[in-house]
Formats: sequence, C-alpha cells, structure tokens
Amino acid sequence: MQIGLVGLGKMGGNMRERLRNAGHTVVGYDTNPELSDVASLADLVDRLDAPRTVWVMVPAGGPTQLVIDQLGSLLKPYDTVVDGGNSRWTDDEKHAKELSAHGIGFVDAGVSGGVWGLQNGYALMVGGEKEHVDRLKPIFEALKPEGPYGYVHAGKVGAGHFAKMVHNGIEYAMMQAYAEGWELLEKVDSVDNVREVFRSWQDGTVIRSWLLDLAVSALDEDEHLEKLKGYAQDSGEGRWTVEAAIDHAVPLPAITTSLFARFASRQDDSPQMKMIAALRNQFGGHAVESKE
Amino acid sequence: MQIGLVGLGKMGGNMRERLRNAGHTVVGYDTNPELSDVASLADLVDRLDAPRTVWVMVPAGGPTQLVIDQLGSLLKPYDTVVDGGNSRWTDDEKHAKELSAHGIGFVDAGVSGGVWGLQNGYALMVGGEKEHVDRLKPIFEALKPEGPYGYVHAGKVGAGHFAKMVHNGIEYAMMQAYAEGWELLEKVDSVDNVREVFRSWQDGTVIRSWLLDLAVSALDEDEHLEKLKGYAQDSGEGRWTVEAAIDHAVPLPAITTSLFARFASRQDDSPQMKMIAALRNQFGGHAVESKE
Amino acid sequence: MQIGLVGLGKMGGNMRERLRNAGHTVVGYDTNPELSDVASLADLVDRLDAPRTVWVMVPAGGPTQLVIDQLGSLLKPYDTVVDGGNSRWTDDEKHAKELSAHGIGFVDAGVSGGVWGLQNGYALMVGGEKEHVDRLKPIFEALKPEGPYGYVHAGKVGAGHFAKMVHNGIEYAMMQAYAEGWELLEKVDSVDNVREVFRSWQDGTVIRSWLLDLAVSALDEDEHLEKLKGYAQDSGEGRWTVEAAIDHAVPLPAITTSLFARFASRQDDSPQMKMIAALRNQFGGHAVESKE
Amino acid sequence: MQIGLVGLGKMGGNMRERLRNAGHTVVGYDTNPELSDVASLADLVDRLDAPRTVWVMVPAGGPTQLVIDQLGSLLKPYDTVVDGGNSRWTDDEKHAKELSAHGIGFVDAGVSGGVWGLQNGYALMVGGEKEHVDRLKPIFEALKPEGPYGYVHAGKVGAGHFAKMVHNGIEYAMMQAYAEGWELLEKVDSVDNVREVFRSWQDGTVIRSWLLDLAVSALDEDEHLEKLKGYAQDSGEGRWTVEAAIDHAVPLPAITTSLFARFASRQDDSPQMKMIAALRNQFGGHAVESKE
Repeated sequence: MQIGLVGLGKMGGNMRERLRNAGHTVVGYDTNPELSDVASLADLVDRLDAPRTVWVMVPAGGPTQLVIDQLGSLLKPYDTVVDGGNSRWTDDEKHAKELSAHGIGFVDAGVSGGVWGLQNGYALMVGGEKEHVDRLKPIFEALKPEGPYGYVHAGKVGAGHFAKMVHNGIEYAMMQAYAEGWELLEKVDSVDNVREVFRSWQDGTVIRSWLLDLAVSALDEDEHLEKLKGYAQDSGEGRWTVEAAIDHAVPLPAITTSLFARFASRQDDSPQMKMIAALRNQFGGHAVESKE
Repeated sequence: MQIGLVGLGKMGGNMRERLRNAGHTVVGYDTNPELSDVASLADLVDRLDAPRTVWVMVPAGGPTQLVIDQLGSLLKPYDTVVDGGNSRWTDDEKHAKELSAHGIGFVDAGVSGGVWGLQNGYALMVGGEKEHVDRLKPIFEALKPEGPYGYVHAGKVGAGHFAKMVHNGIEYAMMQAYAEGWELLEKVDSVDNVREVFRSWQDGTVIRSWLLDLAVSALDEDEHLEKLKGYAQDSGEGRWTVEAAIDHAVPLPAITTSLFARFASRQDDSPQMKMIAALRNQFGGHAVESKE
Repeated sequence: MQIGLVGLGKMGGNMRERLRNAGHTVVGYDTNPELSDVASLADLVDRLDAPRTVWVMVPAGGPTQLVIDQLGSLLKPYDTVVDGGNSRWTDDEKHAKELSAHGIGFVDAGVSGGVWGLQNGYALMVGGEKEHVDRLKPIFEALKPEGPYGYVHAGKVGAGHFAKMVHNGIEYAMMQAYAEGWELLEKVDSVDNVREVFRSWQDGTVIRSWLLDLAVSALDEDEHLEKLKGYAQDSGEGRWTVEAAIDHAVPLPAITTSLFARFASRQDDSPQMKMIAALRNQFGGHAVESKE
Repeated sequence: MQIGLVGLGKMGGNMRERLRNAGHTVVGYDTNPELSDVASLADLVDRLDAPRTVWVMVPAGGPTQLVIDQLGSLLKPYDTVVDGGNSRWTDDEKHAKELSAHGIGFVDAGVSGGVWGLQNGYALMVGGEKEHVDRLKPIFEALKPEGPYGYVHAGKVGAGHFAKMVHNGIEYAMMQAYAEGWELLEKVDSVDNVREVFRSWQDGTVIRSWLLDLAVSALDEDEHLEKLKGYAQDSGEGRWTVEAAIDHAVPLPAITTSLFARFASRQDDSPQMKMIAALRNQFGGHAVESKE
C-alpha cells in the first residue's frame, strides 16, 4: 500500500523503514532535506494516488496543527489523515472536524515502542470511524508487533490518543514503583547486591515485566547509577492523564505522585521546603540550613 | 535430597509436590492430620537423617515463632532451618540467634509465585550465611523456575525477607497503576472497549507485564468487574515496606498511597470525610449528606 | 458610594446588606424577583450614575459569561465591572479584554468568608489595573473585615481569583490534616475524649486556627459525627489549583491528595479497588468480596 | 507546689522560669552544672518533700529511659513521675509499669509551645490515672496558657503523648499546605506580591491560623526566603504518626506525603529519580543528565 509520512525524526524515520521492509510504498517528508524524500508537502501529496493516506508524525501542538491545516488544503475528499504523534486527545476531535469539512477522514493513533519499535514493532491504539480505520489496516498490520497483541481500535476519534495517554500515566507509576523499591533496597545493610535481586525478579515473581528487564539492563551498565543525576523529564502525557482524571473526578494517587516526584527532581532547591524550614524556625527556633 | 517441611497449606502443599516431582524426599508435617505425613514435629525430626534441613512454611508471627522454638529444642548442631513464610525481616535475626545458640543454622527465604508456583516455579530471595545457603542449593534449584532467573542469595540473614517485602511493595504500586488507568478508561465515552485496550497492551508497549496479563484474564472473566466489590485486603508486607522506608528516611509516595487506597477501600464510611463534610458545613453552610 | 450588585444569593444577598449597613447605595438585581431591587439588568444600569460600578456575584462559567456579555452592551466607557464570583482565573483576562473593547474596566475579586462574612467581613483578594481598583476602594473597605488584614491588591487581572483559588487549595489540605488526625485519634483506645483534645488545641498549640475552632463547634453538635456521611463535595477551585500547579510543574502532593480523597468519598464502590481485588485473586487465589 | 525538673535545655529551662513566676518551688537538675540547681539526681530527690513529683524533660529514647530507671530506684511509693518530653507513646506504658513496680505513679504529658511557651504558656495533653493527674493540677495550671483552652486530660497512660504526636502530624500537613500554596503563587506572573497576599489572609479567610501568622513573620524577614535552603528536618513524631496509622489501617495521605517531602528535601540527589532517568533512557533513548 502507498502512504505519505510527514515527520522523519527518530520515530518517523524508523517507521518508514519498518513499513518499507514490509513492502509498502512510503513517501516521506521532513523539513530537514537530508531526511526528506520530497521537496514539500505539496510534492508529497502529488506523489500519492487518490484516495491518499498521510500519516503525521510531528511534535504535538503547534507543529501538528500546522501540518493538519496544510493537509486540509492540499488533500481531496476521500483522503485520510492519521495523527500518530503525541497529540492531546482533546485536539483530535478538532482536527477531525476541520478535515471533515473538506471531506477528509481522520484517525488518531497512539504509538508506543520507542527505540525498540523498528525491530519489535509498535503498539498501536487507534481511534476513529470504522471506515477510516479499516483503510489503514495494512499499515497497522506492518507497524504492529507480530503475534496477537499490540493493536486495538479503541473507539471514536480521540480514543487512540486517550488510551496511549493512560498507558503513559500507568508507565509513570510503574517506573516510580521500581524506583522506590530500588532506593529502599540500596539503603539497607543486609542486602548485598541489589542488582542481583532485581535480576532474579525477572522470572517467577508477580512484578516481572519489560520495565524490570530494562532496569536490569540499566544496572548492568552502571550498577549504582552513579553516572546519572536524579533528574527526570516528563513528556506531557502524564500531566494530561491527571487533568483527565480531575475532569472525571477519578482519584489517581499513584500516577499523580509519580508525576510530582519528577517535578521535584528538576528543582535545584525546593521553594516549598524553604517555607517549611522557615516555619520550623519561627515556632521552634529550629536551626535552618542557610545558603553559606 | 531429604527435607522436612512444616506447614502444608496452599503454598506448602504445592511446594511439597514440586519438590517430590524433582526427586527429593519430603517429610511434611501439618497440624491438620489429613495433610500431614507424620504425627508430630518430633516425628518429622526423627524421620530425617543428620544433618537435617527443615523448611518452615507457616503464618508469620506467633505460628512461626512457635515452630522455631520447638525446632530449637528438637534439632541438633549442624542442622539448618529455613523460614520460607512471610516473616517480617526483623524477626529473622532474632530467630537466627535463637537457633545459633543450639548450633543450628538459619536461612530466610522470601517466596513468590502464589498459586502459579507449582507449575511455573517459585521465585526465591534468600538471606543467610553462605555455608547454610549452599547446603540448600538442590532444594532451591527444584523450587525455582527453569531458566536463568528466579533465585538470588540477596545477603545476610534477613535479606531474603527484606527483598521479598520490597517486591510486594513494588507489586502494590504496580497494581494500583493498572487499576487507576483502568478506572479512568472506563469513565471516558470515546473509548468503547477498555478490555481490548488492555489486551492490546500485552505486546509492544512499555507497560507489558505479567500483572497486565492477569488483568486481561480477570477482564475476560468479568469485563467490567461487576461481580466484585471494591474491597482490597493487605497482607502486612506493604505496611512493613512503608515502615522500613520511614526508618531509612526514604520517600515512598507511590507505594504508600497504594497501601492507603486499600485501607480506604475497607471502610464502609470514611471518618475523615465526615470531618471534611462537617467543616464545609461549618464555614460555608454547605449541604451535608446525612444518614437519612 | 453607589454600586450595582448582580446575583443576590447566599453570598450576594449578605454582601448587599453589609454594604448598605456601611452607608453605600446598592442596587441589586437577581433573576428571582423576590430578591431583586430592579426588574432587569438594563434597569439596574439605568439606576446608576456614570461612571458606574457593577459587582457580579453569580456562579462561575456560563452564568458569569452571560452577565459580562450583557454588561458589555449596557455599560458605557469609564464604567467598571467587578467579578466577585468563583471564576477561574483564566476567564478573567478574557472578560477584561471583552469589556476593554467597550472602554469598560474590569476587576476580579476573590471573596472568602462564607456564611460568616456578613458579620465578620469578607476577605478580598483583588486583581486589576490600579486605576480600576482604586475606584472600588470604598466598597472593598466596607466589605473587608475590620482591622489591618483581609484585603490585598494581589496583582494584574486574574491575580485576585488566582490568590483565592490557592487559598482554597490550602484550605483543602488543612481540612484534610485535621480530618486525618481526628480519625486516627478516634481509633485509639487510650484516648478517651477526642473532642476535648481538639478543644484543648485551641490555645498554645502550633495548629490553632479558625478551622480548628469550627471543628470543635462541629464536634459539640455531634461528638462522633455519627449523623454525617463521609461524603465531601469539591467546588472547582481545588481542581483548578492542581491544574495550575501542573502547568507550572509545581509539586502539590498534600493539596492534590486532599482533592482525591474527596473524589473517592463520593464513590459508592471504587472501580480501581475492584481491579486490585481482581488481580489479587488472579495471582494469589485470594478471596474477593463479591456482591453476594 | 514543689516539683523536681530534670533537663534544663531550651524547653526545660523556660518551663522552670514559668513555674517559678507562678510561685512554685522548682528544683532543677541538668547534666550541665551551669544550668543545674543540684549536683545530682539523688540530690534533687533529697531536696523534695514526700510525696514527690519529678518532671522529666530530656530527649526521647535512651536519655528518658535512663532517667526513668534512676528515678525508679531513688523515688518512693506515692511519688509521681511526669514524662514531658517527646517520648513515643508506646514507651509510656512500659515506663508506667516499671515505676508502678516501685509504687510510683506515672503521667505522660505532651507539651506544645516551643520558644513561645515561656510567654504564652504551653499547651498540655496529659495521659494517666486520675489520681496521678489530679496531683499535678497546680503545675499544669501554671504551665498552660491563660484562658479556657490549652489543657486536656486525654485518657489513659500514653494518651498524652499520642495526642501530642497527632498534633505534630497535623502540623506537618498544615505547614505543607501553606508551603505548596506559597510556591505556586511565587511561580505565577500575574501575582505581584505574594507576601502581601499571605498577610491579607490573616483575617476573614478560612485559612487564618497561627502558622499563617508565622509565615508572614518569616516573609517579613526574607520576602522570597532566599537566604534559606529547601531542607527540612523531621522530629520523629511525624514518623510515629504514620506508623500508628498503619497499625490501625487509617489512611493518612496528606500527613504522609508531607513527611516524605521532608525526606526528599534532605537528599542531594534522589536515587529513585536516577532509576526513573535510567529507565527513560532504556526505552526511549531519552537524554539523561549525567554528572559531567
């Protein structure tokens, strides 16, 4: 099958390769001419036979909006756009409406797999109308992992990104779970070798997982993670998960506390803890640590 | 190899079977005569050749203490006792000292595997002196899963139960992570089929795990878990994990909040939320919900 | 001074009374004719001399938007609108721009005080340009409590509602703090009389506060809060506080967990705890509580 | 009334002064001879008429145990010991039993007031049998603040320290509440002057309190707390509160998260956040911050 692919960064570039390996014809466009197959988005559209399918794989927010707007002008009725980036699910309905005004279909696809996707396949969570999703089946089939899992048509427009967002929220709390356990084990005198404890957990335990395997890999590279700083970014999807939970009055204590731990990790000095120190000093004459 | 096994409940009974399947000679004792191979603990000791090995698999606290005390009297120097139950790690050093006074060795073993252990093997986290642990190797080999993982000599006496305790703490937060994500997905209109989203995550995602597989099994049995009450027990090890963290000034936000969620799930009506309602009423004249 | 007041509910009605007691001329409008001084918003505007000041005290969101829109048409350049309701701070800049297009000034005022405000005065947190705020001084002076505190010009448009929103976030966590302590004391055998413990804290302690006084009042009415259900609403400002924190990557663990406790209090049966129960059953054969 | 006072540090020294100001005869002992009225504990006992009362005001744990042991030998039947230090409530019953074996009474007193107690009085939460507590009434009367509050006989032996411990747990979460709100306000552009917002809250708001007054004092000394480090100690009572809650299966999310925030504030680099960074790098190739 023929597909246009917009955005050829780390993810998009690997997806092009995986799709071509599966025998599909991919016309890729990127603002970086060294990565791009064509000179412009208009070129890309010209190179595809109608009805066209264009997969957008650019950063969420402004960049995605820009490409959607341009495709709205360039594409024709019965064409289909897939947003495979990390867009917020609330953008999807807006994009679907804009494109629908031109007779163009829209599908949102949450994509998991990171740097391992090229080799192992990408897990896909897809939202949209059945007729649009069905047209994409050969592409989804090529991108997804072999085996029975790794693909779902989760629901209406937005459901794909929503499911991917919740996936990432769960991921935050799972990572935090292992991280808390690791720190506690490292603190205790009786345990000689925390790395080997983690390694042993990879079979027969309740907590075996792919993330655990990755933790063991990380510890094999740097047993006590001494080369790293305790500094963790967040990518937006954790934040959106908490906001979606607040909208629906769903308590998310573990996921939220995991997000906050990342926020705190990025502060050189915690303003709120200065206030705690100041209050302790006010009522108890407790010593405070001053900056020199 | 020959081993005595005290406690033939759900876990102990299956372990006897797995050990026998591996060709070991197991003399089992249980207070329930229908399960027991011998009439008494003294009988069990008589039936073993010196140096003896006795694996204790009874509930933590009083019952384990009782068996350890009796074995201290019945066993002889160079014998070894393994506590494979869910004892608190702080009990291990005490038990090791008591038995050491009689010349008897002590090993603590954290055992994971639940009802799946008979078939898949039990993950083992072991603490104790090398000479005592080494004697047990054939037993550990038979109990553990096939393959390279599932067994670790974690450190000194107590390290086995400590590692298992942390394993369970991590398990609490992982379960909470999936549970929070599931509830949020169930609340959202655009997602049609949460069970299929979970199923799809079993390959290619960052959050694939054995617990995820179990979640899918549970949803296959009861898609919206309508037959269950939102009521979750805790087994002690989550509590001990938090207490150990407090002792070492390690923040465990995700694990602790997961424990508290279980506490709250067991309250018919939350006392603290009554106070919140009372205060809102005091300052704002907000309506409260009364018990008719 | 002359002022129009739109919205004469519990808060607005009391504010009219307090302003009149201070000698101001208040023209009140409410959709309920029994409360209203005039027949319509147009009437209210007619009854005021230019430059007019109109205080809006209606529910946040749609109702406030409607009144702002209408006032935009009815008022004239140099008039001023004050939004004293519980609007989200992000609405303020929008409202200010809309009114500014007509030459009308805008001030946002966060108001605290609840049912006690008529007697004790209302704490006011105000945002807006100095020229608009200064015109309102006599009104603020009449509404605020006597004494040196209870009024602040917090900053630009939006700052008043933002400060009030954070006030409410802090309030959530303080209420939760007392509620947690109360529940723990009620659980312990050695403490005979929790109400008297709370009463004693009203002087000499670090935790004395107005909320503590209210807690004592509530316990005097119902010592063990047996007439209440553990069910707590939230008013929006707690949610917005968490969302603002997420926008600024500020960790708010205590405030957020207090919000989540309220969410959980309103669930008859916790979906996420069903998943926890289901998982425990899957791996451990743990008994679950079924709905008979 | 005549009383012996053991421990003349910051708290004990001020209490001696307040008791003497009230006309009581205080014989003070401290290991520091410059502070002490007598040469030894035996001397102190000699200087008191039977039945004697000795107030112990030394650090919790070992030091308190030592003094209790010595008083058990030195005192006589019908004498009474008060432990006014920050002992864990679980120590109280043990101390009461030890002293009871010698016919000596025991009272535990939780004392709040810090550096302000000398002037304003100390809030007292007392546990013990009525006959022992009643003997102390004149002392309690002199120490407590004027006015109707600030003293409670909370219950049996241990209830005084338990109530004080819960007081401190509540204090942790209240401090955290203000600290979170302050940090959020400081982050927002529209709010010009956070200190004045805090100051305004001192009247008419739901969150007015003594701690708020202290926060304003602290901000008056250092408006943005720039001279402080975000580093907060904890004193033991917050930890014990969480442990007591775990014992009773009471969820304490706000208090616990406040304790954990202090733990985290004391880590130069968070081990658990290193693990988060390592995992992100493993699955996503995300850049990590290395220690150059």
